[in-house]
Amino acid sequence: MKLWLNCHIATMQHGQYSIIEHAAMLTDGERIHWIGPQAECPAVALTEQIDLHGAWVTPGLIDCHTHSVFGGNRSVEFEQRLQGVSYAEIAKNGGGIASTVRATREASHAELFHSAQQRILNLLKDGVTTIEIKSGYGLDLVTERKMLQVIRQLGDALPMTVRSTCLAAHALPPEFKDASDDYIDYICTEMLPQLHAENLVDAVDAFCEHLAFSPSQVERVFQTAQSLNLPVKLHAEQLSALGGSSLAAKYQALSADHLEYMTEDDVKAMAASDTVAVLLPGAFYLLRETQYPPIESLVAHGVKIALSTDLNPGTSPVLSLRLMMNMGSTLFRLTPEQVLAGVTIHAAQALGLQDTHGSLDVGKFADFVAWDIQHPSEITYWLGGDLKKQVIQKGKLIQF
Amino acid sequence: MKLWLNCHIATMQHGQYSIIEHAAMLTDGERIHWIGPQAECPAVALTEQIDLHGAWVTPGLIDCHTHSVFGGNRSVEFEQRLQGVSYAEIAKNGGGIASTVRATREASHAELFHSAQQRILNLLKDGVTTIEIKSGYGLDLVTERKMLQVIRQLGDALPMTVRSTCLAAHALPPEFKDASDDYIDYICTEMLPQLHAENLVDAVDAFCEHLAFSPSQVERVFQTAQSLNLPVKLHAEQLSALGGSSLAAKYQALSADHLEYMTEDDVKAMAASDTVAVLLPGAFYLLRETQYPPIESLVAHGVKIALSTDLNPGTSPVLSLRLMMNMGSTLFRLTPEQVLAGVTIHAAQALGLQDTHGSLDVGKFADFVAWDIQHPSEITYWLGGDLKKQVIQKGKLIQF
Ligand SMILES: [Zn+2]
Ligand SMILES: [Zn+2]
Repeated sequence: MKLWLNCHIATMQHGQYSIIEHAAMLTDGERIHWIGPQAECPAVALTEQIDLHGAWVTPGLIDCHTHSVFGGNRSVEFEQRLQGVSYAEIAKNGGGIASTVRATREASHAELFHSAQQRILNLLKDGVTTIEIKSGYGLDLVTERKMLQVIRQLGDALPMTVRSTCLAAHALPPEFKDASDDYIDYICTEMLPQLHAENLVDAVDAFCEHLAFSPSQVERVFQTAQSLNLPVKLHAEQLSALGGSSLAAKYQALSADHLEYMTEDDVKAMAASDTVAVLLPGAFYLLRETQYPPIESLVAHGVKIALSTDLNPGTSPVLSLRLMMNMGSTLFRLTPEQVLAGVTIHAAQALGLQDTHGSLDVGKFADFVAWDIQHPSEITYWLGGDLKKQVIQKGKLIQF
Repeated sequence: MKLWLNCHIATMQHGQYSIIEHAAMLTDGERIHWIGPQAECPAVALTEQIDLHGAWVTPGLIDCHTHSVFGGNRSVEFEQRLQGVSYAEIAKNGGGIASTVRATREASHAELFHSAQQRILNLLKDGVTTIEIKSGYGLDLVTERKMLQVIRQLGDALPMTVRSTCLAAHALPPEFKDASDDYIDYICTEMLPQLHAENLVDAVDAFCEHLAFSPSQVERVFQTAQSLNLPVKLHAEQLSALGGSSLAAKYQALSADHLEYMTEDDVKAMAASDTVAVLLPGAFYLLRETQYPPIESLVAHGVKIALSTDLNPGTSPVLSLRLMMNMGSTLFRLTPEQVLAGVTIHAAQALGLQDTHGSLDVGKFADFVAWDIQHPSEITYWLGGDLKKQVIQKGKLIQF
């Protein structure tokens, strides 16, 4: 058993700091054996004793919505847009998501793995010990499989919990131009059953938007997921109000994500199904969105709020979850305590992992960060940079 | 002589990328001896040959406006504001800049040095090889001196060029309550002459704002600086239009900074005096400012634009200059090329260092960054994280 002592702990139980000052923790292999005030620590045989020198301990951070596996990047397009080239013109020249789909189809397993690993290491260094990664730049069976295999491989290679989400219903592939119902058929009858059979899928996601798929198309994907016993999530209400978040609630989705344009009825539906609202301030910021997600209403109705990087090459090339925490406070006016819950226990629930991850409780995984700070609010307060810290995953200190 | 080869270089000459592809560079001690296409590299005796493996080389970044030496931090106040405590209430309880002044007065030399060093190392790791640091949290001779000495000490200890700016006219100290003219007298007759005599001051700055000092008070500070042969800069037009930037131009200021509320006349005055416009998107973002600096007018009149972190504990706890580059593009719609000029050659001019720093030219210091990227726009595109790179200052590779 390892004893971690001389620290203060924000356990994040019940979605609050739930602070234990002058605390200690006992870990037994991968799990937390005991946590409490240091003075009350039980006497057990120790293999190791780690002095945290007054650090503040929080659960390992959880990034519950990323597209971190992709080929190429879109920095040149980013530059073109700032030079005044219109989005339509860029799309006409094969830019936008189509260019990422092309680059991802062309990339080898190894290329996808190494570029994603590089990006994810940035998140890990920022304190992230659990990450969700979506497919969705393949849009054909071969490439969706390749992405999902790379995601599994990242889970094997990195000292992190990695969850894999199939987002085949991300955009319409060129092969199905003007035949979106046929593509949905293909997803439901071929792709999902096959990829699930290969044990590559932990959850199923879709993009519900005018420029992607309609609620009725999404519902067919959800029904297939349900028949395969896979939980669902949804990109909903990012650019317009289509009722996607209510649909997600109807299917007991783990989360509905983005949500800028959701209505009061959507909020109530999500509250009733305990579906987590995942807010993505990076995309909000980069798109210079002015429509805010209805934070006050979400809070008033008791909907749990998570925050995530949405790491993707188009609308959110974000390599720091802490930066999203600051944007959650600065842009969305969430308190540092709310945003910390949003990247720990609520983010765990958005992945269905709330029984094993997301807060520091006896029996849960010993995933935590010991921050060299004076108060947990500092994690949200500082913008950029690399806060001094130690990252521990499943009881083991990670060496960078 | 060292040969750096197999790279592409954005020299940033003339404030543009000024790209040399398949380039090489010869450095002789601290300086650049030759730069050009690798195929044209002259034959010289080499002590070392460094293969940059296709990296993109830019000048070392320059952070030309920081308050990175301070005691304490204001994360708890940040949290209180988000919990709904009013700014007036926080100020009444001794918060705001007054709390930083107290903490800075109480801190030892060593405490100020170590906390600042920690913060600045974050900037260095982000590619910053030149930094300006202001005093201004002492507001008495003893503490302003202590801050300026710490700034000099940081310059000695770190592999960076560190410029020291005296900002005694930052805020009214409690000792001079309701007697701001007397404080200006004290600055002009005691503090500035004394601190200058101790060789602690490279430039003189002031805060021209209703809640700080009036244009006529600032002018007295400028006149004193002029008599001491010290260049001036000014915090101007951040919250209201007082004509501070025109005043700065009248005194051939190196820069006027913030500038959200500047007028067309101010822009013309700055253009005429070649005073650099330093934009501080971190404070703009954190204060959720909606009044934009007049970017188009600045560009149209040929005013050089620099960008900086404004690293300070109240309105901009920013530890990454790259993040400010992204905000310069995302919020202010500057192109990646403009923002790169804003943290290299234009930032050098904001410090009076344009003859030795800020672009890669024969004779200038060999301060550069070799980025593991595909195009210079990526430096601005990625948000957060730590881009893979090598940082070279005065011809030497920095080991982190
Ligand atoms: Zn997404
Ligand atoms: Zn400032």
